[in-house]
Amino acid sequence: YSPSEVGAQPGYRVAAVLPAGGCGERMGVPTPKQFCPILERPLISYTLQALERVSWIKDIVVAVTRENMDKMEGIIQRYQHKRISLVESGVTRHRSIFNGLKALTENGSNTKPSKPEVVIIHDAVRPFVEEDVLLKVVTAAKEHGAAGAIRPLVSTVISPSADGCLDHSLERSRYKASEMPQAFLFDVIYDAYQQCSDYDLEFGTECLQLALKYCHTKAKLVEGSSDLWKVTYKQDLYAAESIIKGIISQQICIVMDTKEDKGHIGLLEEMLKNELKHINVTSRTLCHAGRDLQQIILDQCYNFVCVNVLNFDFQETQKLLKLLEDSHLSIFNPVVVVSVHFLDYNSEPFGEKMENIMQIREFSKEVKKRNILLCGLLIYYPQDKLKIQESLRQGATIIAALIKERNPGLAGQLLVA
Amino acid sequence: YSPSEVGAQPGYRVAAVLPAGGCGERMGVPTPKQFCPILERPLISYTLQALERVSWIKDIVVAVTRENMDKMEGIIQRYQHKRISLVESGVTRHRSIFNGLKALTENGSNTKPSKPEVVIIHDAVRPFVEEDVLLKVVTAAKEHGAAGAIRPLVSTVISPSADGCLDHSLERSRYKASEMPQAFLFDVIYDAYQQCSDYDLEFGTECLQLALKYCHTKAKLVEGSSDLWKVTYKQDLYAAESIIKGIISQQICIVMDTKEDKGHIGLLEEMLKNELKHINVTSRTLCHAGRDLQQIILDQCYNFVCVNVLNFDFQETQKLLKLLEDSHLSIFNPVVVVSVHFLDYNSEPFGEKMENIMQIREFSKEVKKRNILLCGLLIYYPQDKLKIQESLRQGATIIAALIKERNPGLAGQLLVA
Ligand SMILES: [Mg+2]
Ligand SMILES: [Mg+2]
Repeated sequence: YSPSEVGAQPGYRVAAVLPAGGCGERMGVPTPKQFCPILERPLISYTLQALERVSWIKDIVVAVTRENMDKMEGIIQRYQHKRISLVESGVTRHRSIFNGLKALTENGSNTKPSKPEVVIIHDAVRPFVEEDVLLKVVTAAKEHGAAGAIRPLVSTVISPSADGCLDHSLERSRYKASEMPQAFLFDVIYDAYQQCSDYDLEFGTECLQLALKYCHTKAKLVEGSSDLWKVTYKQDLYAAESIIKGIISQQICIVMDTKEDKGHIGLLEEMLKNELKHINVTSRTLCHAGRDLQQIILDQCYNFVCVNVLNFDFQETQKLLKLLEDSHLSIFNPVVVVSVHFLDYNSEPFGEKMENIMQIREFSKEVKKRNILLCGLLIYYPQDKLKIQESLRQGATIIAALIKERNPGLAGQLLVA
Repeated sequence: YSPSEVGAQPGYRVAAVLPAGGCGERMGVPTPKQFCPILERPLISYTLQALERVSWIKDIVVAVTRENMDKMEGIIQRYQHKRISLVESGVTRHRSIFNGLKALTENGSNTKPSKPEVVIIHDAVRPFVEEDVLLKVVTAAKEHGAAGAIRPLVSTVISPSADGCLDHSLERSRYKASEMPQAFLFDVIYDAYQQCSDYDLEFGTECLQLALKYCHTKAKLVEGSSDLWKVTYKQDLYAAESIIKGIISQQICIVMDTKEDKGHIGLLEEMLKNELKHINVTSRTLCHAGRDLQQIILDQCYNFVCVNVLNFDFQETQKLLKLLEDSHLSIFNPVVVVSVHFLDYNSEPFGEKMENIMQIREFSKEVKKRNILLCGLLIYYPQDKLKIQESLRQGATIIAALIKERNPGLAGQLLVA
């Protein structure tokens, strides 16, 4: 956001329509792409979350096929989506959008959405849309009647002749790719759809063109960022997973059971910051900061390093796990918890402590059911200062790997640095 | 490949030109995208490998900036690329291609490439090009003078008016995205570049259009697969990494030190096949199959599960590591080796064996320098048949995770199933 826009919001009612009736034939997979799982959560849920985060979007109408209605209800319930209404999709994208718009014309009651001044149309398969571009298209639509996000063309566009040869290439700089989101004065786009010919409802290219053709409304074009790209092919799903993993790995909270003995924990924190560039590492003392920690969890921190300095059991880690379970945070994305234990092989009795620590496997099984990925990390902690540094550095590398990969197959393991 | 094309090759000389002078400003990162590392290897090296695999492409000319000449020489040496010549890139893409073509007009000697009948032009940032589409564009170019791969448009293309509003949308079905590879009769494209105006060398859209404009050659258009996509943005790098990880995880070789006692190893193999669908799992007895194993390594298997049935030391794993180091396979991609050990906690003395197995950390450090990621896996092997199954299933899950993530930060760990 540019600073002037922080907190800015339109002074009129805004709703969104999300056509999600597609069948994903392009992906070459049986699941329609809006329902493909990313970290086990369907793609469309990420898109809904992106829209819900924007407080001034009052209603979100999703159009899905009759067969997927139950699945969609399940997604809304499981991921606690708010302000959503479902309508049945039509056989084409335009018919689905039209159905969504119709649902917004009915008189609003407690349960039904009411007619907005401006309506956003977005794709279920563009999960990374940001508030600033939504505000830009909405504001431009309020002024011009219609607006849409555009991007530079990545490839040259050509016109083939009937015999499959090149007729001509378009001059790339004179054209743009029309992306989503788009926004319209509700009356403009609704009017366009009401007038729309059957042919255009079947084959028409896109909403901006319908507003132009039927209402003579020339859409304002707004430059979007590359985040707006549409998940279309299998490689796009891979990219989306990496991006989501990156987003939920942006903050790590180090939790410990004491305020003293900050020496090596401070060093571990430093190493982590070094290993995970651009990541916000904070630390909290668990026993003194219950409320503080709850705020961090509420702020959607998905990564915890729980340092057990005083004890070789899991008291502290268990307290943290309890807080996490109560928060329901892990409903949305897998939470990584690394339970760190320091051990000096030479000066301490090894076997008994190891046995305690190996309990991590049982704890892990329990919390894994709730999408919490718990690992143990044993950091070798000898007297030699230089060796401590090396151990901590390796510990940070292991923590970084666990957070980056977030692989459930590794939950319950005790790693050694 | 369709069966008729297997082994088909053109009966005339073919070369390729790869413009790689771009500076990657779109990516928003300081490294030009063709040099961005994927699993630590620069993107362009994957593209070169894709072209080299095609035996009938006799010369590959790469155009790079003067500043990147040394870097490129280093990549060629390190990854043992063959049939490559370097030329200096021009200030635009077209000037770079022209420089590459010029290099092919010089008389061939032992070290210099010679003039081909058909020349392929490809992008350094499209690493997943397959032999079949290369053959198709080359064959079509031989017949029509020019040919290029096309793809359906993902977004609607629009023409903006001067005031940043929509002028009109193009009918999506009537246009295509022009992708790479393209191919030309050498004389056609060389002639086109020689006649080409300075304006077109600076701003001209693409080679197909130059062949049309200057030589009246209408390119044949060939439908390509979605693999042809161009690594343009950061999300494309993520996708490319996932695809490459997928490609090198397609085969797992289970190696063991005995032909007897196949019971639980057969079961582990079965579980692995179940865990890793579509993956080719083969097994070999190390002591009887040295040559056999060398063939598997030559066939570029990047995943080994080494089962130590008889011994609790690393004799078998060390033999495998020696074979791998001699093969230089890990120059190209990280090799994952999981050293599996079975243990019945109840009936066997625990401490001593564990100590042996913990040596894995030291071995791992050594081979990690050569891009071999070694982990240990201890599979709990009790008398109870049902529990064995559970242990083996969990072992397979862990192996699958290690192969999928291929994270160097986890090398040297001893995991427990
Ligand atoms: Mg192109
Ligand atoms: Mg579109």
